[in-house]
Amino acid sequence: MFTPRNYVIIGGNAAGLAAASKIRRLQPTARVRVFEKGPDVSYSNCGIPFLLEGRVAKAGDLIHYSPARLLEQRGLEVFIGHQVLGIDRKKRTVTVRNLETLRDFEVAYDRLLLATGAEPIRPPGYGFESPNVFTLRSLQDGRALHSHVKAHRRAVVVGAGYLGLEIAAALRARGMEVVIVERRRRPLAEWHAAISERVLAELQAAGIQFVAETTIEGLEVEPNGTAVAARVAGDGRVLRGEVFVLAVGVRPAVSLAREAGLALGETGAIAVDPTLRTSDTSVFAAGDCAETRHLLTGKPYWHPFGTTANKQGRVAGENMTGGHRTFPGVLGTSALALFDLEVARTGLTVQQAHSMRLEIESVVVHASDIAGYLPGKKQATVVLHVKRRDGRLLGAEMAGYHGIGARIDVLAAAITAGMTVEGLAQLDLAYAPPIAPVWDPILIAANEAIKRLR
Amino acid sequence: MFTPRNYVIIGGNAAGLAAASKIRRLQPTARVRVFEKGPDVSYSNCGIPFLLEGRVAKAGDLIHYSPARLLEQRGLEVFIGHQVLGIDRKKRTVTVRNLETLRDFEVAYDRLLLATGAEPIRPPGYGFESPNVFTLRSLQDGRALHSHVKAHRRAVVVGAGYLGLEIAAALRARGMEVVIVERRRRPLAEWHAAISERVLAELQAAGIQFVAETTIEGLEVEPNGTAVAARVAGDGRVLRGEVFVLAVGVRPAVSLAREAGLALGETGAIAVDPTLRTSDTSVFAAGDCAETRHLLTGKPYWHPFGTTANKQGRVAGENMTGGHRTFPGVLGTSALALFDLEVARTGLTVQQAHSMRLEIESVVVHASDIAGYLPGKKQATVVLHVKRRDGRLLGAEMAGYHGIGARIDVLAAAITAGMTVEGLAQLDLAYAPPIAPVWDPILIAANEAIKRLR
Repeated sequence: MFTPRNYVIIGGNAAGLAAASKIRRLQPTARVRVFEKGPDVSYSNCGIPFLLEGRVAKAGDLIHYSPARLLEQRGLEVFIGHQVLGIDRKKRTVTVRNLETLRDFEVAYDRLLLATGAEPIRPPGYGFESPNVFTLRSLQDGRALHSHVKAHRRAVVVGAGYLGLEIAAALRARGMEVVIVERRRRPLAEWHAAISERVLAELQAAGIQFVAETTIEGLEVEPNGTAVAARVAGDGRVLRGEVFVLAVGVRPAVSLAREAGLALGETGAIAVDPTLRTSDTSVFAAGDCAETRHLLTGKPYWHPFGTTANKQGRVAGENMTGGHRTFPGVLGTSALALFDLEVARTGLTVQQAHSMRLEIESVVVHASDIAGYLPGKKQATVVLHVKRRDGRLLGAEMAGYHGIGARIDVLAAAITAGMTVEGLAQLDLAYAPPIAPVWDPILIAANEAIKRLR
Repeated sequence: MFTPRNYVIIGGNAAGLAAASKIRRLQPTARVRVFEKGPDVSYSNCGIPFLLEGRVAKAGDLIHYSPARLLEQRGLEVFIGHQVLGIDRKKRTVTVRNLETLRDFEVAYDRLLLATGAEPIRPPGYGFESPNVFTLRSLQDGRALHSHVKAHRRAVVVGAGYLGLEIAAALRARGMEVVIVERRRRPLAEWHAAISERVLAELQAAGIQFVAETTIEGLEVEPNGTAVAARVAGDGRVLRGEVFVLAVGVRPAVSLAREAGLALGETGAIAVDPTLRTSDTSVFAAGDCAETRHLLTGKPYWHPFGTTANKQGRVAGENMTGGHRTFPGVLGTSALALFDLEVARTGLTVQQAHSMRLEIESVVVHASDIAGYLPGKKQATVVLHVKRRDGRLLGAEMAGYHGIGARIDVLAAAITAGMTVEGLAQLDLAYAPPIAPVWDPILIAANEAIKRLR
C-alpha cells in the first residue's frame, strides 16, 4: 500500500493546524507544510470581539502558537505570507506565491488539505470600500478595527447575526455609541422569538440602538474617502458614525477548490464524504471551507464554527495518513454571550423543521436557574422543538445568565441519542440549590412538552 | 374498576406534596389528606445551609407553600403536628395523633403514601445528647442550629459528606472557626481522589481545619449539660467549641412501614416496584424513605435526593389514582457547591464499578473551562470512568468554578443513552469563548479516554 509522506495544507487556521499536528503525531517523520497567505496562524478569530472590548489586551494574546513554536514543538513547516495560487491535481502540486518576495514556486504533495476557511461578505459599491468600513474575519481584520476604534466614538454595525451582535456588544462595552441595522425584525432572526426577544432586550438595556427591518442604502463618503454616515433605506434616516462594520455573513472560501475542478456541495462549500475526502481521493477539506452533514436532516449542511473545524481537522489529518475515521456531522449547536446574557441552540430551528415538513410542537418555559429562595437567581428561557408524532426532541434553544452553554449541551446529547421528551423528563440531573433547582429548567420544559403532546 | 377517592399521605415533604398535588390535579374532587408530624411542610431542607450562612434571611423563606395555601390553591388538607402512629392495612386505616391535643383518631384510606423521608444518624452516648449537639434534617433542626450559632464562634462538624461540607462552609462563611472531623482520608471519600483533593484544597483555602482518618471519642460535657469540646480518637487532641454538628449520615425513616409489615429492601429503605407500589397494592412509597433502582447496576439503590423525591412523588401520585407511570431509576447524580467550587458526579463511582467486577479505566483531565485567553478562566477537572471492553461511559465526576452542574448533566444524558467515549467525543457541544472553549473539557476527557483504550 502507498504510504503518503508529503503533506501540504492550505490554511494555517484551526482545521489546518489540527490536521497538520495529527499527521505529525501519527507519522513523526512525514513532511508537513502549511501555507497561510495571511500574517498569522493558529489564532482564535472568535476571540476578536474580546480584543475590541478590551478583555483581551492585545491581538497577540489570541495566538496559540507561532510558526517557530509549531516547527520546534510539532515539526510543522508553517509559511505565513504564502498564498497558494493554484492546484495541479494531475501533477499533485500546488503553486505557491511568497507574498513578500512575489516569487512563485511549486510544491508537490501526496495528500493535500484545503483549509481555506470562510470569507466575509462585502457587497460591492454602497461606499463599502471606504477605509473605515470593516469586515471581520482574520486577526489582521481584528487588528485594523481595533486600532481604528481607539480614536472614535460612534459605530454602525450592519447585521445582527452572531458576529454583528458580538461586535456591537464589544464596542458598546468600550463605551462607544452603537447602532445595529438588521434587515429582519429581530436579532438572531432564525431563532425562536422567545430567545431573540431576550437578546433584543439585552441590547436595549445596554444602550445599543437596534434599527430593524431595513438595510443600508449606502454610505455618505467624504471626498477624502472616509465614510461619515449610513443612509437607512426607506425612511431617509441617516446614522452618523466613524466606524462602520459589515457583519452580513460569511461564505466558504472555495475559489481554489473550484478552479481545481473539485466538486462543491449544494451549500456552496467543498463537498466531502464522511472521511473528509473531496471528489479527488488525494485531496481533503476541513473546517469552514468544507461541507458537513446535519445529523437530524441527514442533508449537507454548512456550519462554520470553531469546534467543527477542530474536530474535522483531526479526522482529516488521520485519514490523510491512511486512517479510517469519520466525522458524522453536526447538530448546528451554537452559543453566544452578550454582556451577561448567554444564548445557545442545538438541533433544528422551527424553520428547518418546517422545511422538512416535520410537525413539531415548540414549548417555551421560563424558570429559575437556581433555587428560587437564593439571591442571584435568574430566569432561564428554554424552548424545545418536539416531534408531535413520537415526542422526539429535535431542537432546543435557551437564554439565561448561568450555565446556558452547558445546559444546551445536555440537549445536544439528548438529541444525538434520539431521546424523547419522556426520556428527557426522567434524566437524573444534578441538583444543588446554588447550582440548579430541584426541577431544572430542562426538566420543567420536558414535562411541559409531555403535557402538550397528550 | 374500583376508583380510589380517599387518599392519605404520611409526610409533608417534597415527595408527599408532589404526590398529593398530582392526585388533586388528576381527581379534582378526591379527598387528599397529608399528615406531617413536624411544624412545617413544603420546604427545602437542602436550603438550610444557606440559612445558616445568611444568604437566606429567615427559615420561612425556605417554605414554598403554607398549609393554608395548599388548601386554598390545591385543595389539599394538610395537618401539621400530626403524627401517624400506625397503619392497619386490613382495615385500611391509619391512627393519627394530634401532637398538640394528644388526641388520637383514625383515618380511612383507599390509597396510602409513605413519604416518611430520612432521619439523621445520631449515635447514642458520647455526650451527643447535649443541647448544643445538632443534627440537621428538618427545617426545625435548621432553626435550632441557626438560632444557636448566632451567639457562638467555634464549630466542630463531624463528617465530610455532602451535608457536613455544606454546613462547615456555611458556618465558615459566617466567620466562625470550623473544624471538620472525618473518619476517612478525604472529604467526599467515595469520590475520585482528583475531585476530593480539590474539595480539600477549597476547604483549606477557606480556613477550615480538616482532621482526617479519625473519629470523635466523645464530647466533654459541663455539669449544666453543655458540650465544650470533642476528644479526637487516638491522639488525645481536644477540639474546643460551642457548636457541635453531627453529619455522619442519614437513614430511611421506615419504622412505620416496618411495623405495618411492609417489605423493606436490601438497602433498608421501603421496597417498591417501578410504579412505586410497596408490597401492599394499596400502599405506595416515594422520596427518601423509598428504594429505587440504579440505572446502571439494575440493582436496588437508595438515593435520598430532592430531585428523585419530587419525581417519585409525581409518579406515585399518578399511579395511586390508577395511572401506570414508572420511575425507571437513578444514576446517582449529585452536586455540591463549596464557596465558589462546584463538584458534581453521575453514574458509577470507582468502588461501585469494582464491586460489579467491571474493568474500568478512569481518565482524569484538567482543562480550561472557557477560552484560555480570557481573564476569569479556571481549571475544570473531569474524571470519566469508562468500561474497558467497549468504551462505554459508566461514570463521571467533575470539579470547577463554572457550569459544573450542567456539564455533569451532559454526561448523565450520555450515560443514560449508553454512549461510548467515541460517541461523546463527537458530540456537537456549544462553543463561545466566554462560555466554553473550542475543546470543551468534556471533549478533551473523551479524547483522552479514547487514546487510553487503544
